[in-house]
Amino acid sequence: MPPSVVTYVLDRLADLGIGHVFGVPGDYSFPLNDAVEVHPRLQWVPSANELNAAYAADGYARRRGAGIVCTTYGVGELSALNGVMGSMAERLPVFHLVGTPSVRIVRQGLICHHTLGDTRYDRFEAISAAAGCVSARLTPENAVVELERVIDKALEDSRPAYLTVPMDLALMPITGTPIQGTPIGSIDQHASVTVELDAVLDLVMERLAKATRPLVMPTVTLKRFGLVETFATFLEVSGLAYATTPMDKALLSEGHPAFLGMYNGVRSTPAALQSVVEGADVLLDVGGLVMEDLNTGLWSGYLDSRRVISLHADWVQAGDQVFTSVSLSEVLAGLIKRFQAADAKPSQWGEQRPVQPEPLIPLAGEGDQPTASANVYPRLQRFLRPTDLLMSDTGTSLLKLNAMRLPDGVAIETQTLWGSIGWATPAALGCALADAERRVVLVTGDGAHQLTVQEIGVMGFMKVKPVVIVLNNGLYGVEALLSETGHAYNDLPPWRYAQLPEAFGCQGWWCGKASTVAELEQALAAINAHNGAAYLEVSIPPEESLPLPEAMIETLHQTATP
Amino acid sequence: MPPSVVTYVLDRLADLGIGHVFGVPGDYSFPLNDAVEVHPRLQWVPSANELNAAYAADGYARRRGAGIVCTTYGVGELSALNGVMGSMAERLPVFHLVGTPSVRIVRQGLICHHTLGDTRYDRFEAISAAAGCVSARLTPENAVVELERVIDKALEDSRPAYLTVPMDLALMPITGTPIQGTPIGSIDQHASVTVELDAVLDLVMERLAKATRPLVMPTVTLKRFGLVETFATFLEVSGLAYATTPMDKALLSEGHPAFLGMYNGVRSTPAALQSVVEGADVLLDVGGLVMEDLNTGLWSGYLDSRRVISLHADWVQAGDQVFTSVSLSEVLAGLIKRFQAADAKPSQWGEQRPVQPEPLIPLAGEGDQPTASANVYPRLQRFLRPTDLLMSDTGTSLLKLNAMRLPDGVAIETQTLWGSIGWATPAALGCALADAERRVVLVTGDGAHQLTVQEIGVMGFMKVKPVVIVLNNGLYGVEALLSETGHAYNDLPPWRYAQLPEAFGCQGWWCGKASTVAELEQALAAINAHNGAAYLEVSIPPEESLPLPEAMIETLHQTATP
Repeated sequence: MPPSVVTYVLDRLADLGIGHVFGVPGDYSFPLNDAVEVHPRLQWVPSANELNAAYAADGYARRRGAGIVCTTYGVGELSALNGVMGSMAERLPVFHLVGTPSVRIVRQGLICHHTLGDTRYDRFEAISAAAGCVSARLTPENAVVELERVIDKALEDSRPAYLTVPMDLALMPITGTPIQGTPIGSIDQHASVTVELDAVLDLVMERLAKATRPLVMPTVTLKRFGLVETFATFLEVSGLAYATTPMDKALLSEGHPAFLGMYNGVRSTPAALQSVVEGADVLLDVGGLVMEDLNTGLWSGYLDSRRVISLHADWVQAGDQVFTSVSLSEVLAGLIKRFQAADAKPSQWGEQRPVQPEPLIPLAGEGDQPTASANVYPRLQRFLRPTDLLMSDTGTSLLKLNAMRLPDGVAIETQTLWGSIGWATPAALGCALADAERRVVLVTGDGAHQLTVQEIGVMGFMKVKPVVIVLNNGLYGVEALLSETGHAYNDLPPWRYAQLPEAFGCQGWWCGKASTVAELEQALAAINAHNGAAYLEVSIPPEESLPLPEAMIETLHQTATP
Repeated sequence: MPPSVVTYVLDRLADLGIGHVFGVPGDYSFPLNDAVEVHPRLQWVPSANELNAAYAADGYARRRGAGIVCTTYGVGELSALNGVMGSMAERLPVFHLVGTPSVRIVRQGLICHHTLGDTRYDRFEAISAAAGCVSARLTPENAVVELERVIDKALEDSRPAYLTVPMDLALMPITGTPIQGTPIGSIDQHASVTVELDAVLDLVMERLAKATRPLVMPTVTLKRFGLVETFATFLEVSGLAYATTPMDKALLSEGHPAFLGMYNGVRSTPAALQSVVEGADVLLDVGGLVMEDLNTGLWSGYLDSRRVISLHADWVQAGDQVFTSVSLSEVLAGLIKRFQAADAKPSQWGEQRPVQPEPLIPLAGEGDQPTASANVYPRLQRFLRPTDLLMSDTGTSLLKLNAMRLPDGVAIETQTLWGSIGWATPAALGCALADAERRVVLVTGDGAHQLTVQEIGVMGFMKVKPVVIVLNNGLYGVEALLSETGHAYNDLPPWRYAQLPEAFGCQGWWCGKASTVAELEQALAAINAHNGAAYLEVSIPPEESLPLPEAMIETLHQTATP
């Protein structure tokens, strides 16, 4: 007997290396829920709501290469939409599975719940599909063909896919021959046209050979297509130095000898890096830089496009030259070969370091002094272990953490482009399940945390062991800052954060609060000693505002009318 | 100086009688957030997230006639979408206000956060607009004209409206002459074509005159268009008896002398009501019945369409006759006049009562017996006061509450058509702020509550005083029931519910847990004595499943393949 449609979908997605399904059960999706439950390679994660499920699947896909979120028709899929759209923006192949009203209901034109009381059963399809790069309505007849198309496209774009199946068709056996897939890591996501590829390799090598101040800027695209190790080899053989933007932070360890620092326009760290990047005579952009406001110090820098060579995932731009159908993986492989074969010593570019990355932030504050950014971040920096995965929600804490050099080996996940506050808490759950080798250290502002806090309960339920650090300033810090400090609408309800894990049923969690430097030091030591899940609330003075130059605030707000 | 665009929007919406704005601040929406803060007639409610804000605005609109939800571009509006779509389904005029990137950013084609990293700034517009019946992009030039159009349409359809304004244009003065609006209650939402109206009145009076078993079924549409009092007068002068579906429950007090019970197909209460409704020779549907699965005992009843006269909000259907442009308010007013002028005594239809509504559920259980549905609902029924507003989330508890006759005067709000679990907790906040005269008693299952629980903190912050009753069976009860009892994916993290209000910063709340009948009785007495906000967790045995006939489960699941 061939597998049912839902079993086949799950088989094919499990083949990619996915091991968990995040979701909320719902009646139209029961066939999917049931099939996950009995699937030998998939585990159901009972997300507290659908947005949280989508965020968790996004986090999961960051570390595992792909993820699954499963919601019900209408209410469920729409609740997940912002999370899936975030995966669309940040390029993560999340498969969104949705059960829909049975063909039996549709054929009869029955009115059912989760609709507008009419018979337009396809009303939500275009909406959900807009958060993906590909979609399909699965049936027993088309499941084999459609799944291959959808998986190919989702991985090629590294973006979400939307799959629906009516609840009665879901259980019917597929009619074609099942295909056994392979893990993402073994799939070539793009192919090159050879003449274009050769032209790119010639151009890059020529430009680099003539350059005296070349610089590489790797981007998160390398992670999305499994090319980080290849890029590390490229750095080694080329001897080139590199800088990253906030979005691409710690793509390789920030202890890497070729690392110069973070380019972020006038907010670069070290500050001298700005002129090094903007003054490079060849800037090799590996993956496609995103010149977004929060990735460029609010558009404060200037990169001369004539000096930039952008190696996108499947095309290349060098000034006004565009090369299409060129795979990033093959460009890197080709460059590595040419460098290995070349007489030119890598050292011709590699030995001078025009700037050194920031050292550890000096320790400040002590004893009974109240906790504040100036004394919290240096201690957080020293708290991190080489195998930690730091996660930061969007907010003032992200701006601080992006500017902080991470200790050797520490990885980070953030959502700098989509920037949906509340993402990090569920995403931390997803990352912890996807990448059990790393300890997840979640740093979140109180404002962001409140949006999605119930996922703490799911962390306890799934027995993952993150370290959650809530920076509590009693308001939406970054909003207060960007508008004008002191607006009442930025005030938050005064939660007692450290009581939450227990209320959410978490067992064996270390929970505590720090308001002074001594308490903070004790807490961080206790958390490392506890070596399990932990939840720490740290007070940050609400009056503390980020030293953003007035000019930057104006950049965002500028209008003729006050 | 004319008002700014945002101030003018808020002025016009406040004119309707709206006094609160639910939302999450966000940088593109700061001009809106700022304007709310200084507005003399509006108060900002700091919702914990955007979906909760939309649900709260939905609840608010149910009791106040209209509501406002304010979110930011992209991330915020998409998170709110399911909530606003629920208002679309359930017909509530919620104004969704969104600030968008400045014209200055758009003109320059800058890449900004909350986008996909491209310059398609209008990518989310069609998505958000799909959850409303009307939308507009506001500018200084069009604000006066567009607002009148949008408000007219939203009130005419009683459905959401989507309004965007770029953050720089938001602050510019409008160019037209500001219009002073009037409260919703004084606005005539539909007009009739006279000949059609007269034809309808003739038809209804003739059909009723000939009927021997006439029955009225009022619907929630009457509430949406402020016609409940008019309908009560109609009942009085006509002497007709009425029944309601679950969706229309307690539209008038269930102590009303003309009330017969709840029609819900084979699940009608009293059971004998099914044949009374289905055997009526004229069934006057006042507002438009929605024959949705959960409103018809899973499509188990049968109404002969030849005997039904449906008075929709602005059209009428009687068998194969359709009358367009006929206003429900004018039909009711016309019928009242004709009954008042007629010689026919109302009693000709009114005196026989073919069936009596259910009395109070007999008290069951005592002392140390564990709490369970059989002993909880009778006590809940006696706990309710005449001025209470009962709110129930979708789930097993709703099925029980719908079947329970409400004490005289008690009102109820549910979301039977859209049925998005988690709605009720934020909606309870909205209702409490909109309708301060009533004590809100929220009954929610644990599964539904977990989705949106953080709004408890907002209740505390806003100092509203609901009674929250969480029925804790440790799983998604209705899902477990509809799929097959015992699926692990319906298990929930074991929260300690009664600890939540304190953790969320609520002050002065009575909090407790009841696992036995004696504890439940003490708790309910203590809550009434406390006379303030309260939060009660009640254990319900997880093995307790609703006695849904096997045939009904099949109705939903039916397929050839097991």
